[in-house]
Amino acid sequence: MTDQNARYREEEFAIFNHLESEVRSYARSCPVVFATARGAQLFARDGTAYLDFLMGCSSLNYGHNPPELKAALTDYIASDGITHGLDLYNEAKESFLRELEETILRPRQLDYVVQFPGPTGANAIEAALKLARKVTGRSNIIAFTNGFHGLSLGALSCTGSRFHRAAAGQLLGAVTRLPYDGYLGSAVDTADYLDHLLSDPSSGVDLPAAVILETVQGEGGLNVAGPEWLRKVAAIVRTHGALLIVDDIQAGIGRTDAFFSFEAAGFRPDIVTMAKSISGYGLPMAVLLIDRLLDVWQPGEHTGTFRGNCHAFVTARAALQHFWRTDSLAACVREKGNLLKSRLDQIAGKYDPSRVSAKGRGMMRGIDLKSGEIASQVVRTAFQRGLVVEAAGPKDEVVKCLPPLVIGEDQLSQGLEILEDAIDSVIGG
Amino acid sequence: MTDQNARYREEEFAIFNHLESEVRSYARSCPVVFATARGAQLFARDGTAYLDFLMGCSSLNYGHNPPELKAALTDYIASDGITHGLDLYNEAKESFLRELEETILRPRQLDYVVQFPGPTGANAIEAALKLARKVTGRSNIIAFTNGFHGLSLGALSCTGSRFHRAAAGQLLGAVTRLPYDGYLGSAVDTADYLDHLLSDPSSGVDLPAAVILETVQGEGGLNVAGPEWLRKVAAIVRTHGALLIVDDIQAGIGRTDAFFSFEAAGFRPDIVTMAKSISGYGLPMAVLLIDRLLDVWQPGEHTGTFRGNCHAFVTARAALQHFWRTDSLAACVREKGNLLKSRLDQIAGKYDPSRVSAKGRGMMRGIDLKSGEIASQVVRTAFQRGLVVEAAGPKDEVVKCLPPLVIGEDQLSQGLEILEDAIDSVIGG
Amino acid sequence: MTDQNARYREEEFAIFNHLESEVRSYARSCPVVFATARGAQLFARDGTAYLDFLMGCSSLNYGHNPPELKAALTDYIASDGITHGLDLYNEAKESFLRELEETILRPRQLDYVVQFPGPTGANAIEAALKLARKVTGRSNIIAFTNGFHGLSLGALSCTGSRFHRAAAGQLLGAVTRLPYDGYLGSAVDTADYLDHLLSDPSSGVDLPAAVILETVQGEGGLNVAGPEWLRKVAAIVRTHGALLIVDDIQAGIGRTDAFFSFEAAGFRPDIVTMAKSISGYGLPMAVLLIDRLLDVWQPGEHTGTFRGNCHAFVTARAALQHFWRTDSLAACVREKGNLLKSRLDQIAGKYDPSRVSAKGRGMMRGIDLKSGEIASQVVRTAFQRGLVVEAAGPKDEVVKCLPPLVIGEDQLSQGLEILEDAIDSVIGG
Amino acid sequence: MTDQNARYREEEFAIFNHLESEVRSYARSCPVVFATARGAQLFARDGTAYLDFLMGCSSLNYGHNPPELKAALTDYIASDGITHGLDLYNEAKESFLRELEETILRPRQLDYVVQFPGPTGANAIEAALKLARKVTGRSNIIAFTNGFHGLSLGALSCTGSRFHRAAAGQLLGAVTRLPYDGYLGSAVDTADYLDHLLSDPSSGVDLPAAVILETVQGEGGLNVAGPEWLRKVAAIVRTHGALLIVDDIQAGIGRTDAFFSFEAAGFRPDIVTMAKSISGYGLPMAVLLIDRLLDVWQPGEHTGTFRGNCHAFVTARAALQHFWRTDSLAACVREKGNLLKSRLDQIAGKYDPSRVSAKGRGMMRGIDLKSGEIASQVVRTAFQRGLVVEAAGPKDEVVKCLPPLVIGEDQLSQGLEILEDAIDSVIGG
Repeated sequence: MTDQNARYREEEFAIFNHLESEVRSYARSCPVVFATARGAQLFARDGTAYLDFLMGCSSLNYGHNPPELKAALTDYIASDGITHGLDLYNEAKESFLRELEETILRPRQLDYVVQFPGPTGANAIEAALKLARKVTGRSNIIAFTNGFHGLSLGALSCTGSRFHRAAAGQLLGAVTRLPYDGYLGSAVDTADYLDHLLSDPSSGVDLPAAVILETVQGEGGLNVAGPEWLRKVAAIVRTHGALLIVDDIQAGIGRTDAFFSFEAAGFRPDIVTMAKSISGYGLPMAVLLIDRLLDVWQPGEHTGTFRGNCHAFVTARAALQHFWRTDSLAACVREKGNLLKSRLDQIAGKYDPSRVSAKGRGMMRGIDLKSGEIASQVVRTAFQRGLVVEAAGPKDEVVKCLPPLVIGEDQLSQGLEILEDAIDSVIGG
Repeated sequence: MTDQNARYREEEFAIFNHLESEVRSYARSCPVVFATARGAQLFARDGTAYLDFLMGCSSLNYGHNPPELKAALTDYIASDGITHGLDLYNEAKESFLRELEETILRPRQLDYVVQFPGPTGANAIEAALKLARKVTGRSNIIAFTNGFHGLSLGALSCTGSRFHRAAAGQLLGAVTRLPYDGYLGSAVDTADYLDHLLSDPSSGVDLPAAVILETVQGEGGLNVAGPEWLRKVAAIVRTHGALLIVDDIQAGIGRTDAFFSFEAAGFRPDIVTMAKSISGYGLPMAVLLIDRLLDVWQPGEHTGTFRGNCHAFVTARAALQHFWRTDSLAACVREKGNLLKSRLDQIAGKYDPSRVSAKGRGMMRGIDLKSGEIASQVVRTAFQRGLVVEAAGPKDEVVKCLPPLVIGEDQLSQGLEILEDAIDSVIGG
Repeated sequence: MTDQNARYREEEFAIFNHLESEVRSYARSCPVVFATARGAQLFARDGTAYLDFLMGCSSLNYGHNPPELKAALTDYIASDGITHGLDLYNEAKESFLRELEETILRPRQLDYVVQFPGPTGANAIEAALKLARKVTGRSNIIAFTNGFHGLSLGALSCTGSRFHRAAAGQLLGAVTRLPYDGYLGSAVDTADYLDHLLSDPSSGVDLPAAVILETVQGEGGLNVAGPEWLRKVAAIVRTHGALLIVDDIQAGIGRTDAFFSFEAAGFRPDIVTMAKSISGYGLPMAVLLIDRLLDVWQPGEHTGTFRGNCHAFVTARAALQHFWRTDSLAACVREKGNLLKSRLDQIAGKYDPSRVSAKGRGMMRGIDLKSGEIASQVVRTAFQRGLVVEAAGPKDEVVKCLPPLVIGEDQLSQGLEILEDAIDSVIGG
Repeated sequence: MTDQNARYREEEFAIFNHLESEVRSYARSCPVVFATARGAQLFARDGTAYLDFLMGCSSLNYGHNPPELKAALTDYIASDGITHGLDLYNEAKESFLRELEETILRPRQLDYVVQFPGPTGANAIEAALKLARKVTGRSNIIAFTNGFHGLSLGALSCTGSRFHRAAAGQLLGAVTRLPYDGYLGSAVDTADYLDHLLSDPSSGVDLPAAVILETVQGEGGLNVAGPEWLRKVAAIVRTHGALLIVDDIQAGIGRTDAFFSFEAAGFRPDIVTMAKSISGYGLPMAVLLIDRLLDVWQPGEHTGTFRGNCHAFVTARAALQHFWRTDSLAACVREKGNLLKSRLDQIAGKYDPSRVSAKGRGMMRGIDLKSGEIASQVVRTAFQRGLVVEAAGPKDEVVKCLPPLVIGEDQLSQGLEILEDAIDSVIGG
């Protein structure tokens, strides 16, 4: 960079550098100020377009500013619809609930009730943990290696990342960590280990209130649990009187094709947490689905100010209405997921599997570069070439592709080409 | 209620009754479905208007749908402004930061940096606690009787309510509870007790990372800390190497007249948490202000999906611009706060002080009815007469008035008349 | 010290210096190797006699090697009595239980059952805490400022000393710390504060399983709880459904004159912990007395290898038989306690009360020198003049006199003279 | 039992039934009052002799009342040796330390220092955990399935038994539970799993202060860790900056033939805990051996009243002197251990391996009957025939033989015959 450019850049980010805490993170690998966004594209202040394969970490499954949702939201605001009213009854929530019941729950014969915790995934996890403990009268929770469930204290206890755990500065207790599917290699069925521990009265693992898991571990590096393992775990959990919580915050809302990521495996969790793409517009919103028989909450027992984010209810309702009344989106994700898979396999196939491999499920896939440093170079290189993408995994070694579910094939191909070039230039070079 | 009405009501709330968890709370004392809102008024589906003295628990200090904020938001949406981009740099955040710096921080000579934690007050508290522990290397936190700081596990450890604490179903640790100003009667200076405990090496109170407090305890029942006590606590905290966190989530953003509730007492907290009215429009948003020297976060150490709620940045910026570039709002709050005080004193004055008394500060005041049951009747009666108001305090015995700061005197008077009538009818009857 | 002496000393302590961990403590203020002991006297290897006002921290209330106990123990060993048999029934335990029932419990109409936890005071506390939690289904414990209850993790949670607490290296949880009688000055009744906190549902203090207290805080610096305060606390505890645990490990077994330290105040704890002088011979032994109705233990639920220390049962039985079948020892302690008080008052009276004051109860009294450094000099000086004595209190500022209860008046006077001289030489000089 | 006998029995146990807590356990399977004991035999009050294969859970490795130790103790008592003097220097401790150095540590080139924690195994564990946390600045501890380390709160956190853990009534935190050698079957090397978890920065297992293990799990059911696994774990622990604590409380002091149970595997723990048979006479005593470089204790940081149990020092010294100055005891244990093994194999060989199998190492062996109920019947039957023996393991399904190391072959055979008969009569019948 020339000196002049450097000075310009400095000015460009002046207020961020001056006023924003060092805790900011994503901005560091994308040094540009974004202004607008549409579909799969982000536009910088100077007009430069970037393809977005990060999509708010799967929070914008329908793309940026999807027109149908935008219209609904604009109308709502224009009519002075309530923005926030704690959990007072209002029409925005009512419409969302009706749509959820008719479009999602009833067709799947899911007899859940709905809780609106604070509008973040972590808060949904906090609520789920409390409820499981309340229902069972037990306090232990079983969570898995490489799981990520958020960073508030209760959620963080379930999260695997040592970096984030250390930031607590205090005990993260009442959680037992067990190996996820495949963690001990393909020869060991870690579900059997779970069963053994719970059956053995001196295993040292206290009977849990709940087992919490992601069907695909997003932040953990795109590890996929097999359907058999999932069904087996679900059965074991039931046998030992615990609840099964599926954290569908990242993998849900169509990311793996069906609305819920667990549909394919054919089991029914006791509690499901959703956030990220539930509002469909990037607005903060979180939902807990609770088996009707387990809804033992007392009024106000888990509360919070922003549970009633009506703007999010409006876009969430429009999203269900527009994208989920038919199966077409799921079918489209299945198809594009296959495309994504074959392209990533092809990219990985150019290299030794010990250096590069493809991972993931549905449209939640990526390239494992086995090294955080290499992945970081790939991310930066891709950005310079017009693709926003990020790395995940224990060492941030997996470059994760989370394009919008509604992306066109051309844009998908274009993004993957940039990624391939970036990998080639970093590894090949 | 006639049978027909009952059936009607049943239908009206059908989807809520069927699908929403029993955890819903506020809706129970306001059995109506709201549709729109403007200024100090909520409108039910059937058009009935209600004066709103709850205002999302002080989350809508500028009233419902304030036109200036609405215009800014509508423009932003129309232009396809980014709604969410994790913490990527974007113009909405940039504008907010600039406005905050120029309108709030610089004039007050506050050298803070800004962190955007997840968009809830609880998440801001979680971040503040982590940071204090990280800075000091200590784990204990001192919180006060009747304090309320949120319900995620870390925040809940600091919250006093036994009802909410019990819902955790697990240990709430690493927090020492001390008596708030006045808790031991006017003869005992509880700040001295704090000092004594920290100075005594076998007091059993571990040296704290931080002391966390509200200057006015909203949920705790409108208990007010005196300015001297606050200054004394600030000095003690400093002497013992701890940080002072002011939770200004409810009392801040002009509720007690100045932008920050602690300005009047003339001390500077190390960390300030804000949420509720910071977006000005009821949109989820939270902010941490951190003494620049204490910003020891590593990138990404406390993160979350919805930190970048751009819609909230847009309205927050518009709110600062419109309401805080001059002192007029603060002056107006001072004036109306006095009015509120004198009216509440007058209402309370009609009864024996052991049955009714007035409490609070600024436009955060209420009537202590000494009984949760009586307060609950007053709340229901007021609602039937057109006023939305809620109770707080250890036994929900304090009816809390949180009208919009911009309310007109006529509406304020009208609301207070309804409240007075409700009290008279419940107690007098 | 001459070089030759230094070398001699070095050799004298060679194996301790080489092989014993730095954790050793008492030895540091008494640099001599002891060989034998009788009554109130310790004899060093070279024959030098020392008066012992430390007495194993009140573990040798009947003096060193009391002849009646020695005889019983010698006979038992000679007959190949069982030394240890876990908790198998044996005659040594049987005899102790019978003596305890007839000599102690029945005359006082105390309907307790007896548990033998591991043979240390800390283990008795651990057992008491478990039982209280089991009985009540609650987990919080209330302990007091300056309390000392041992250093294993559960006991340590109740102990006040920051130095000892820090050594845990982990969370000390589930304990709420409250001010002991007098901690907030004579104007504040801290029992009222306790009651207030338990009655207030948002005090932030969870309802406790138990309140644990010493009637006289030994390690805490000889703080004495008044009988009214004790009775009031006992009543409050009962009202709020908690248990009262009296830790009588140091103050019991006649140290304050009656067998139990709480007899004078006329209330009955739910659980009493005893250790130290219960064996009467310095042998490890601990006892829990449990209200019969609260004995909800399942067999083996709190167990341990050395619960059946038969040698200790033999000497404990002999001690009860010899010293407690009549009231004469208690009367004698009352008398000598008064003597001790008047002499300590006299010593303190020579100095300004802000520099020297007398404290304590019964034969558990001392001189508060307001400075750990001065107290440490006094301890060392006294030792050089033939008196073994130690300091306690938050800053180790209280020189504690715990002579054997059976000490002769001449030896008591002699020890006090040495102490007075030491104080005079340190402070007067 | 006839009515008359029943009445007699009732009287015989009257004081125990009346006064001892329900927590008593071993007595329940041996309903008789013991009076004296010699060598491998216990004698009931009525003179009936019982062979003792329980031996205070390996606390009496040299038999009951071994004459050489008895003589030393009797002499010491007769001379008015100090019984207890906190941790003041005394000759009894000095002699023990010298003997330990010369007879045990120096010949094995072990550069340990010695700490005397409170005189129970649990207290030694508490001290070890504190020290490991202090040395490393970490708080997590890794313990294994089926491990037993005592029941005070810190030790209990490391203990596997759900029954004992539940009795805590509060959080058992800061411990991660991992599978012991063989727990996942012979195909899985659980040491590799340990290494994987510690190497993976998002495994969710925080880096530990220490790994704590028994080389043979006594209470856990005689599970034996292989020497390779032990060495591998030792290496992994070192690589990840943690300490290795070997809990040699039950398996040490010759039980597996060498003085320390880890000698055979050829690695050196950082900390070793000993208790049970260290005094050799059944007297309460515990010892911590600490790598000299890790002795970072501050004076008095972990303290307790009964650390100075001089009677135990006297017998412990005599035991080392008499039994460990030569290799003969170890050789004898090796030989008798083999005898024990072949006899148990023979007994087990009569049955299907799925119903009966032999387990253990050295003279710490037993019969796994796969059922707690069957094992309990065997224990009761054996007792009726004159053998005191107990069951261990997750379901108390392993009948454990812990005869004195010095038992004669005839008594060993006699005991095993009784055991065989008991098994035959219970299973065969």
